[in-house]
Amino acid sequence: MGTLDFPITAGQIAQRFNAELYGDSESLVESLTSVQNAQRGTLCFVADKKSSQYLQSFEKGVVVLTTKDLARYELPLSYILVSEPKVVFAQIASAFSPKKARVGISEKADVHTSAKVDPSAAIGPFAIVCEGAEIGPNTQIYPHAYIGPKVKVGAQCEIHPHVTLLVNVVVGDRVKIFSGSVLGSDGFGLIQGDEGHLEMPQLGCVVVEDDVRIGAHCTIDRGTLGETRIGKGSKLDDQVHIGHNCRLGRNTILCAQVGIAGSSVLEDGVILAGQVGVGDHITIGKGAKVGGQTGVTSDLKGGESYFSTPAMPMRHALRSHVFYRDLPHWIEKIKLIEKEIHGNSKS
Amino acid sequence: MGTLDFPITAGQIAQRFNAELYGDSESLVESLTSVQNAQRGTLCFVADKKSSQYLQSFEKGVVVLTTKDLARYELPLSYILVSEPKVVFAQIASAFSPKKARVGISEKADVHTSAKVDPSAAIGPFAIVCEGAEIGPNTQIYPHAYIGPKVKVGAQCEIHPHVTLLVNVVVGDRVKIFSGSVLGSDGFGLIQGDEGHLEMPQLGCVVVEDDVRIGAHCTIDRGTLGETRIGKGSKLDDQVHIGHNCRLGRNTILCAQVGIAGSSVLEDGVILAGQVGVGDHITIGKGAKVGGQTGVTSDLKGGESYFSTPAMPMRHALRSHVFYRDLPHWIEKIKLIEKEIHGNSKS
Amino acid sequence: MGTLDFPITAGQIAQRFNAELYGDSESLVESLTSVQNAQRGTLCFVADKKSSQYLQSFEKGVVVLTTKDLARYELPLSYILVSEPKVVFAQIASAFSPKKARVGISEKADVHTSAKVDPSAAIGPFAIVCEGAEIGPNTQIYPHAYIGPKVKVGAQCEIHPHVTLLVNVVVGDRVKIFSGSVLGSDGFGLIQGDEGHLEMPQLGCVVVEDDVRIGAHCTIDRGTLGETRIGKGSKLDDQVHIGHNCRLGRNTILCAQVGIAGSSVLEDGVILAGQVGVGDHITIGKGAKVGGQTGVTSDLKGGESYFSTPAMPMRHALRSHVFYRDLPHWIEKIKLIEKEIHGNSKS
Repeated sequence: MGTLDFPITAGQIAQRFNAELYGDSESLVESLTSVQNAQRGTLCFVADKKSSQYLQSFEKGVVVLTTKDLARYELPLSYILVSEPKVVFAQIASAFSPKKARVGISEKADVHTSAKVDPSAAIGPFAIVCEGAEIGPNTQIYPHAYIGPKVKVGAQCEIHPHVTLLVNVVVGDRVKIFSGSVLGSDGFGLIQGDEGHLEMPQLGCVVVEDDVRIGAHCTIDRGTLGETRIGKGSKLDDQVHIGHNCRLGRNTILCAQVGIAGSSVLEDGVILAGQVGVGDHITIGKGAKVGGQTGVTSDLKGGESYFSTPAMPMRHALRSHVFYRDLPHWIEKIKLIEKEIHGNSKS
Repeated sequence: MGTLDFPITAGQIAQRFNAELYGDSESLVESLTSVQNAQRGTLCFVADKKSSQYLQSFEKGVVVLTTKDLARYELPLSYILVSEPKVVFAQIASAFSPKKARVGISEKADVHTSAKVDPSAAIGPFAIVCEGAEIGPNTQIYPHAYIGPKVKVGAQCEIHPHVTLLVNVVVGDRVKIFSGSVLGSDGFGLIQGDEGHLEMPQLGCVVVEDDVRIGAHCTIDRGTLGETRIGKGSKLDDQVHIGHNCRLGRNTILCAQVGIAGSSVLEDGVILAGQVGVGDHITIGKGAKVGGQTGVTSDLKGGESYFSTPAMPMRHALRSHVFYRDLPHWIEKIKLIEKEIHGNSKS
Repeated sequence: MGTLDFPITAGQIAQRFNAELYGDSESLVESLTSVQNAQRGTLCFVADKKSSQYLQSFEKGVVVLTTKDLARYELPLSYILVSEPKVVFAQIASAFSPKKARVGISEKADVHTSAKVDPSAAIGPFAIVCEGAEIGPNTQIYPHAYIGPKVKVGAQCEIHPHVTLLVNVVVGDRVKIFSGSVLGSDGFGLIQGDEGHLEMPQLGCVVVEDDVRIGAHCTIDRGTLGETRIGKGSKLDDQVHIGHNCRLGRNTILCAQVGIAGSSVLEDGVILAGQVGVGDHITIGKGAKVGGQTGVTSDLKGGESYFSTPAMPMRHALRSHVFYRDLPHWIEKIKLIEKEIHGNSKS
């Protein structure tokens, strides 16, 4: 679709998306905003009935990305009509906010002579690229990032400030890693020694496949001997921890503060809500969904939802919880029954 | 109150605070310490009966900040008498430990020519201040900090080493942000695509009001289109996560490892204990207190205390938990009753 | 044992460890690997019956570190026979992966003239060593690390990229601190003020004893007036939080995302599984083990295992949980009993 520049008219946007336009095609869009903050000169989207109620309060000239059904044609607004307003809005927003494509290596960066940096990549000030590292085309290495020895980063990646790719890390294409995340640090492998614990040396790697998104302050440890792998298209929120030797399938989603101990496997499409904990050597089946704060202590079958610690099927967990909440009531019943029986038995 | 310098006499301290002095006003204070470690040359505070028992073991010459009631006048110590020893001790400690007010921009910092840095501010080595950023009077930008494009930091702030203020971040006055925290990183907004998930572009901002304290390794994501806001006087401990579009009111307190998903609202004075998780689009009412590890899955009324996952009113949660703990006992009772009835019915 | 260099023969390894060799002593080892990935030119270990089943699929020439019992002598492999294959494998791996002993201060580091850096230590580019700091022999300060004023780091330590040792931090010998960890940041001490909360100044220190291992992104806050102490040989995984004034004994083990509030004590050998939360002013006795996600709200006796929130003895917790899981069944029973009794009473 290419990139867009402000200001742009409603008509120009509609044309780019082959979308039907209703109202003034000359209305100017100078920025994007939410339906709550829409005013003349902005584009917002309306994707459900609830949001459409905001339309009547808009001043003249607002441009609205919406569906045929939700548009309020009696109002003096410009409507760009599409079937998926949110998706199209996201595409427009992406086109408007191309990361400023810096190119070249900052004089204040420290890039080893043996590192291979594509000429279209950018390395920011105080960033470090160690010996033997490789940086692919159009990839942005932001300031303060640390790219360790022999680390490979593919094309069109964003490696944000203060990210550490320590050692033996291989990153695919179109991967975003947000500030502070640490990949390739030693896993937590202890061996009971005569006095205290020895650490099992960690010699393995981390592989991040294409189109992965890793939030701020995640920690992904290197494999002990083999690899820790994050599957294509997976999306990690902030402060997620992935232990050594874990394997995440394709398109997994891990919300903030999830922690996964060593050697566990998430199959394709697994979704873990916030603060979920997964023990070691556990497999969670394809497409399973796990509710917030759940503690997973044994394998879970795919295709189902789970909740509670230790994890139970969601429905079961909710039923048990209702009874838990009502325990004072049920215990009272037990006491009454007891009294009644003993009353009976006395008579 | 100004700043204080060691050594200082008991009398001089008393004078600064208009406090009554009992004992030797010439006793020298060379450092501050806890009541457990007090010795000649130190000032400690005694704020309750339990701590006052330490007094008898002190050697001559210790200076004690305490109340009239708690002083043990028979002992050869110097007493500075105030109504709130802990508060006054904190004030004295603050006065003794003024952060060394460095001024000026380190030669090893990287400050963009378009950035506005107040002459009384300090920028440490390897810190970065990007284009269009603004740094207010007497603010300390410590080494290795990253202040992104157009970020605004107010007056008398402390931005510690390795902090990242990524983009569209506005910080008020007297704000402290400890090492490693990341503000303004992308929120976690996914849209189901044909294959895998698209990321909703995150275009909004983070606003941190005056007098906020943000611990080490917090992550506060930018709003999707609008803002993520941390209200005046709020205090965040370490490793706290705040999702996009959240709004925290005034004087909220969030203990370590709390996580809040997107678009939730904490009203004024809400207190969340350690490891609490709050789901998305949830409102927690004014002054509510939430116990450690609680999972908040729906709105909570203000003014009450809550506990457990999903969150319940504290009293209810504790009662249910007592019965939970005693479930083996109650289930035994059910079995006995059953036997008794069936025994009866057989006869 | 000294260091080893690839390639090395099976015979040479056996000799170094005074181990018995069976098979071809001339088999070359070029790298170490897991039993799943073993091939000619690699060394792997087999420590249990399950792993020994892989042996039959190995090609000729694999070198196997194993016990007398587990070796399959009919197969054309080289066996190095020891009583503890895993421990010996770890020792060999350590010998093969000596961190490249860089020596000297990078021209791009910023080391204060008053800092004392041992000539055998290394300071990487963009690392900072502040006034009065001390760095011991053979210690590696990696790039981007921040060593604050008067911080002391002992001998043979590894301080990884982006670590912050803020102030008043004393680190012993042979300590590893992984990327992003922050030691010596202010603890979370609030005093209710007239409007909002004041922060109690934090003036204390952090002491890390010998042989401690601190994972990535840990936060260890300085004591308020005294110290926060991590005992000798303790091992912390990633994203662990230790509040101010805590004391950890010797050889404690804290898994990922554990959080400990202020002033708590873990005695020697305590083991906390992932995501455990410990309240403030709590003591956990010697050798206690605490299961994942447990919330510790009061003192725990040593030598036992615990689970659940609030923490209960493990066996009790598991029994209660079984009944919890079966609550729908038991409540049904109560209803039936009730009906039966009332049915009876009607007749």
